[in-house]
Amino acid sequence: MKILIKNANLISMDSKREKIEEGIDILIEDKLIKKINTDIKENVDKVIDATGKVVMPGLINTHSHVPMSIFRETVDGYITQDWLEQKIWPMEDKLTKNDIYYASLLSFIEMIKTGTTTINDMYFMTEEIIKAAFEAGIRLQTTRTLMDLTGDGDVRIKELEELIKEYSSKDEKITFNIGIHGFYTSNDAYIPKCVELAKKYNLPIHIHFCENSKEVEDIKKGYEVQSPVELIKRYFKGMHIILAHSVKLTQEEIIELAKEDIYVSHCPVSNLKLGCGIAKITNMQENGITVSLGTDGQGSGSNLDLFETMKFTALLQKGIQENPKLLPAYEVLKMATINGAKALGLEDSIGSITEEKIADIIILNLEEVTTKPLNDTFAEIVYNIKGTNVETTIIGGDILMENRKLRKIDEKNIYEECNQVIYRIQN
Amino acid sequence: MKILIKNANLISMDSKREKIEEGIDILIEDKLIKKINTDIKENVDKVIDATGKVVMPGLINTHSHVPMSIFRETVDGYITQDWLEQKIWPMEDKLTKNDIYYASLLSFIEMIKTGTTTINDMYFMTEEIIKAAFEAGIRLQTTRTLMDLTGDGDVRIKELEELIKEYSSKDEKITFNIGIHGFYTSNDAYIPKCVELAKKYNLPIHIHFCENSKEVEDIKKGYEVQSPVELIKRYFKGMHIILAHSVKLTQEEIIELAKEDIYVSHCPVSNLKLGCGIAKITNMQENGITVSLGTDGQGSGSNLDLFETMKFTALLQKGIQENPKLLPAYEVLKMATINGAKALGLEDSIGSITEEKIADIIILNLEEVTTKPLNDTFAEIVYNIKGTNVETTIIGGDILMENRKLRKIDEKNIYEECNQVIYRIQN
Repeated sequence: MKILIKNANLISMDSKREKIEEGIDILIEDKLIKKINTDIKENVDKVIDATGKVVMPGLINTHSHVPMSIFRETVDGYITQDWLEQKIWPMEDKLTKNDIYYASLLSFIEMIKTGTTTINDMYFMTEEIIKAAFEAGIRLQTTRTLMDLTGDGDVRIKELEELIKEYSSKDEKITFNIGIHGFYTSNDAYIPKCVELAKKYNLPIHIHFCENSKEVEDIKKGYEVQSPVELIKRYFKGMHIILAHSVKLTQEEIIELAKEDIYVSHCPVSNLKLGCGIAKITNMQENGITVSLGTDGQGSGSNLDLFETMKFTALLQKGIQENPKLLPAYEVLKMATINGAKALGLEDSIGSITEEKIADIIILNLEEVTTKPLNDTFAEIVYNIKGTNVETTIIGGDILMENRKLRKIDEKNIYEECNQVIYRIQN
Repeated sequence: MKILIKNANLISMDSKREKIEEGIDILIEDKLIKKINTDIKENVDKVIDATGKVVMPGLINTHSHVPMSIFRETVDGYITQDWLEQKIWPMEDKLTKNDIYYASLLSFIEMIKTGTTTINDMYFMTEEIIKAAFEAGIRLQTTRTLMDLTGDGDVRIKELEELIKEYSSKDEKITFNIGIHGFYTSNDAYIPKCVELAKKYNLPIHIHFCENSKEVEDIKKGYEVQSPVELIKRYFKGMHIILAHSVKLTQEEIIELAKEDIYVSHCPVSNLKLGCGIAKITNMQENGITVSLGTDGQGSGSNLDLFETMKFTALLQKGIQENPKLLPAYEVLKMATINGAKALGLEDSIGSITEEKIADIIILNLEEVTTKPLNDTFAEIVYNIKGTNVETTIIGGDILMENRKLRKIDEKNIYEECNQVIYRIQN
């Protein structure tokens, strides 16, 4: 199938063209972006008129727990541990495969409707999440969460390996990483087994790391180390490491950490909501760590709208460091696109609108009172555009939403199914 | 005119009914809310079906500079002083009365479209702002900014008094306060004259206060005081005082300040964007200060969407104090409604949906993927609802927007006029 996007205001996020280009046509052929130029003449199956609209790469969410969509807004007024113990864990115990499937679809609808085309996930009953991803047509990097608290650590590794064997080559949209829940839910005997699996299949490590003060204390005690960074060096040396959160790192620890191949997933909304704090991301970047953006699950992150995450990211550092020159809008756009691709080891195929890359593309309608007058398009996107301004979402050359209408999923049915799930498991 | 809102999910923000009530009818007669009950039978001119929707009081923005709409997204990458000196002031010098009128209308469109029904403003050429407010139908508390930097301080006071005489009794939607720009742009001889005017007309004081570190230093030097709070006590004792920002106050200063009649307008987005910091609002509340919400001008605050301001307010305190129990959603809803009314001295007439109060009402459509499943409506409104979810806006019993269509203003014309203004003044 050939699609021609006509007359776009292109924000390619390609390092060779770091400005907005007007009047650009983009030719998509099957999965790939084949041509980017002015006035492309070509016989195509579908023309999308992007006059007056912004075309940019789909956003990349580097940390989430997609089935947690059904736990949205259950945390208000709770401290994290009480919320988990009193509300979330008892409900999670009741989740069936079917529940996971529908809850995942709810998240994938949310992604498509807010312009995210790739998501990095960590949860359980992963096969159902993969099935939902196939159904929705989204790009998913996933895992089966590895932890070793109740003696089932080895079973989890075995399950993950089976998933990797079964689904790795089935569809280029599904990739894997080795998602270790955390150091505090693993141990010195278990982590090397996880690493072995990562090396066997040449996959990245994905781990919750230094999200809050208690976790850091637990790690220090449990592993008898001065700093959690010692564990990164001890177990993951030479590997591609995706660290979720990384809120509680000192400047010295960041410098030490930056010597490894580190990709931090910054989840500012969740970090604020759970009372964790604010990660020192500009400091990380200055030391060479690649920072990308995540939402975390909706239980703590409220939603999967990365436009909102961009706004929080841009504002928090300026505010707490009392320096408005930090993180100009374009820098934050990079975090939500090409840096996300780098984090997931997918920068050769996604993260920018570049010829021969995969066509993961969104089209934004900027016609909103909050963008009038339009003085700075990059800043408007970061500060005033929301996921609801995404008009069209294309993943792998497949138009999943056009003019805000989903083309593959019956939204209402999924909402109804999810209502039934949450009603059942909380009673 | 009689309007009947049928079958609402009512969030009244009335202290006597602090929960969501389902299936509620609200009868509006001319300007007033006449009846709140289930199943009201009455012959009316207009029925609004609110089935499945949330009806709540219009939001109240307690600090803004509405003509600055045209400077939206001009600050990215600048430090505040450079932005003002190099960009804003040269443009402001070129503003005509007509420009102020159109730029104000742009802000009033934004208010109506994002559910704010009352705004407290501080700028110049105030008569044009008042005319625009009449035209738009919004509720405005305004001033002519008082300062005494270039010898025109007395002229400013005279102008403000003339406005008060001319417009105070013209329309209940227009009220005044005495807007003193700041201590650092006034002096020991000038402020008492402003206070005299406030006392003569029994009006609140509205002043920028402790927005950033430099201002605090300037105040300390300029007035030879240990703390800016001394000036509040010296000049404003016994008065109703609206303080914008108040970011740079120590805990001791807050305790001292709280002994006066203080209403802080918290503007978290602007404070972050300009690198000012984060105000200690929970500390203020614990000491009895009434905290309401403001956006500041769009030059620093990006937009006038108080739903977004609520989200930042709720999250920032949890994050920086590392305590997720702080500021539950309902507390933040109060800041955006009834506390705003208290700040402007209007709590007897607006800020809650209460019989005999003025009908400033908004209707929210919660049908968004980000509210599925709907586990906690208060939290959904604070964390997942945006100004764009406001479907209908009623001010003083007048339906200004219905199903997102403005009924009194030609939006496109105003956008075009504002485009021309910014194009002209920046060249």
